[in-house]
Amino acid sequence: MKKLHLLAATLLMASAVQAQQAIFERHDTRSPEFNADGTVTLRIKAPEAKKVGIIGDCIENGRGEMTQQDGVWTYTTKALPAELYSYRFYVDGVETQDAGNIERSRDVRSFMSTFIVSKEEGDLGYLYQNHNVEHGDVSHVWYDSPTLGMKRRMSIYTPPGYDKGKAYPVLYLLHGAGGDEEAWLTLGRMAQIMDNLIALGKAKPMIVVTPNGNASDDAGPLETGIQNKSWPKASYEESFKDIMNYVAKHYKIKKGADNTALCGLSMGGYHTFRISMLNPGTFGYIGLYSAAVRLGRGQQKSLEQQFEENPEATAQMKALFAAKPHLYWIAIGKEDFLFQQNVELRHYLDKMQYPYEYYENEGGHIWRNWRIYLSMFAQRLF
Amino acid sequence: MKKLHLLAATLLMASAVQAQQAIFERHDTRSPEFNADGTVTLRIKAPEAKKVGIIGDCIENGRGEMTQQDGVWTYTTKALPAELYSYRFYVDGVETQDAGNIERSRDVRSFMSTFIVSKEEGDLGYLYQNHNVEHGDVSHVWYDSPTLGMKRRMSIYTPPGYDKGKAYPVLYLLHGAGGDEEAWLTLGRMAQIMDNLIALGKAKPMIVVTPNGNASDDAGPLETGIQNKSWPKASYEESFKDIMNYVAKHYKIKKGADNTALCGLSMGGYHTFRISMLNPGTFGYIGLYSAAVRLGRGQQKSLEQQFEENPEATAQMKALFAAKPHLYWIAIGKEDFLFQQNVELRHYLDKMQYPYEYYENEGGHIWRNWRIYLSMFAQRLF
Repeated sequence: MKKLHLLAATLLMASAVQAQQAIFERHDTRSPEFNADGTVTLRIKAPEAKKVGIIGDCIENGRGEMTQQDGVWTYTTKALPAELYSYRFYVDGVETQDAGNIERSRDVRSFMSTFIVSKEEGDLGYLYQNHNVEHGDVSHVWYDSPTLGMKRRMSIYTPPGYDKGKAYPVLYLLHGAGGDEEAWLTLGRMAQIMDNLIALGKAKPMIVVTPNGNASDDAGPLETGIQNKSWPKASYEESFKDIMNYVAKHYKIKKGADNTALCGLSMGGYHTFRISMLNPGTFGYIGLYSAAVRLGRGQQKSLEQQFEENPEATAQMKALFAAKPHLYWIAIGKEDFLFQQNVELRHYLDKMQYPYEYYENEGGHIWRNWRIYLSMFAQRLF
Repeated sequence: MKKLHLLAATLLMASAVQAQQAIFERHDTRSPEFNADGTVTLRIKAPEAKKVGIIGDCIENGRGEMTQQDGVWTYTTKALPAELYSYRFYVDGVETQDAGNIERSRDVRSFMSTFIVSKEEGDLGYLYQNHNVEHGDVSHVWYDSPTLGMKRRMSIYTPPGYDKGKAYPVLYLLHGAGGDEEAWLTLGRMAQIMDNLIALGKAKPMIVVTPNGNASDDAGPLETGIQNKSWPKASYEESFKDIMNYVAKHYKIKKGADNTALCGLSMGGYHTFRISMLNPGTFGYIGLYSAAVRLGRGQQKSLEQQFEENPEATAQMKALFAAKPHLYWIAIGKEDFLFQQNVELRHYLDKMQYPYEYYENEGGHIWRNWRIYLSMFAQRLF
């Protein structure tokens, strides 16, 4: 009887709501379509268009033209390896996302449609998908930052089983310029990566804290009351202790460097570089992904020269490595515009005989690489 | 010195990243533009288009045509009262959102650009915006539902100050057909409404729990491992106790009907109707927003007749009102396709002399009304 009620209500609502306002919008143009040969077909209906272009990392050379039949424009990719892909259409020069695909991501001000290709358990696409495994919870919390003089928003992942009362180690995961406390959860796929690596037994259960690295703002642009209203009272690096204090007070965490990791991408790599120097002995695992590595403003000099002229920073680096972190991990793509800064960092670490590990892969300053770096780094922790 | 580091890194990233991949995308077409006379101008650059249409609740009669000058198409609304508005462009028949506006919402499968108009503190637009007030935290948690045989995702708002250890009353807030555990947070603006009503002293601080009402699914379509894979083991109504058990175990809550409220929209109104009947004395405040009100499948008979033929349901309603809830609140718009079902509900309640309150306003089965109903109902609670 009660099942019938449910069914009745569902059917009733489905038909009646559809009639009234088409919230159950259907798009008869199937897109994306995953073909048996590993290619993916993308489609958009635009009978009046003269030309439809497509851009994205699933498109050869990044951009292509679609072909039209019966008003539907089509592009079929090459066979794609396991990954998360992004794309967008240009209909006679006007950008649009794929109306047939509800998966979309915002990167700063730019929207793309997305899809994931996975071939087998454990591949990159698999790690980025939702599976029927135990899931961690994700909370968006407002912490007090006395250093910056405001309450600020951050996102916190707690692993499956966290509510049973055990304490867990903590990874602090920092975003890049233009990003916010949502960036690692959307294009970064952090919750999926952690759920899946933990379920596969490839990463230890851990808490992952992903704050907002823009010291002027209290939160991302869609969530905020305070944005760029004034120059910040202090640097993000100085304020980082407020984040760690909040986490220590509100979460059951294992303490000490053995149980604390820090990593970040691009500007977040810079933050990681500087915060780890300011706090020797705090982080046992440090990861720089496509990091900006400089000691001061508009530096043209090599990093080695910058350190030579900066005894304070030199002493900080010495103290950092004297505390013997388990892992100082540098990752960057060959085409990254920050590649040379990381060459200089390695050169400096080599010269000072500070131990580190280095991972280099293809590609540039892109989320694809940052997801890969997180997937690798998380497996090395704790 | 540290500030300079921050500045250096920020500038470095901003210019270099822009050069490499234009993630700091700028749209020179300003949209939306809020004019001094209360109108709003929406724009899209489409030099090659023959015709650009616009739809939305800010457009007279719901749809209009844009006019073109120098390749930029423009539509200026009438002066708009305080509200959250949605719109979308059709460029030669192809739908697109406003590339100049990062505010977008997904409703089931449909994306719209959005903006908020507010005239003064406390108006509807004000309630839906983020302000520099104390914010509650929002968590997405996975709870165990033995009744449905799966872990399921739900969203929970805890009020500002929750972490100080006091217990709070709980509102359970249910979405409609096609929605999920994100619906009340996106188009529903629940967190903003609660933050602002609490800050204004118009609502008591409370925990708000917004679960997923689709018993086949474990989570919304972008978040899930299990969706529509099989017919559910039990009804959502039967499984509701699992949600309440999780909340009682994991949150500091004030117990009893005086501190427990239930409301929902459309299908969630149906769920509210049925769950409150199944659990007399549990909810001291009950809110039906644009509710589907039926006792069984495909019912053509009046609700009064349905009750006459259903002694079990009749006894449940009797027990519900014997427990004397503080408020049984029915809200619906005059053009709602479920209006007649709510006439029948009021007729039945009148006949049985069960006390309730009724609110009727303009409009149909739309989020605009559901946000208003939540804003009103929340002020009546606890």
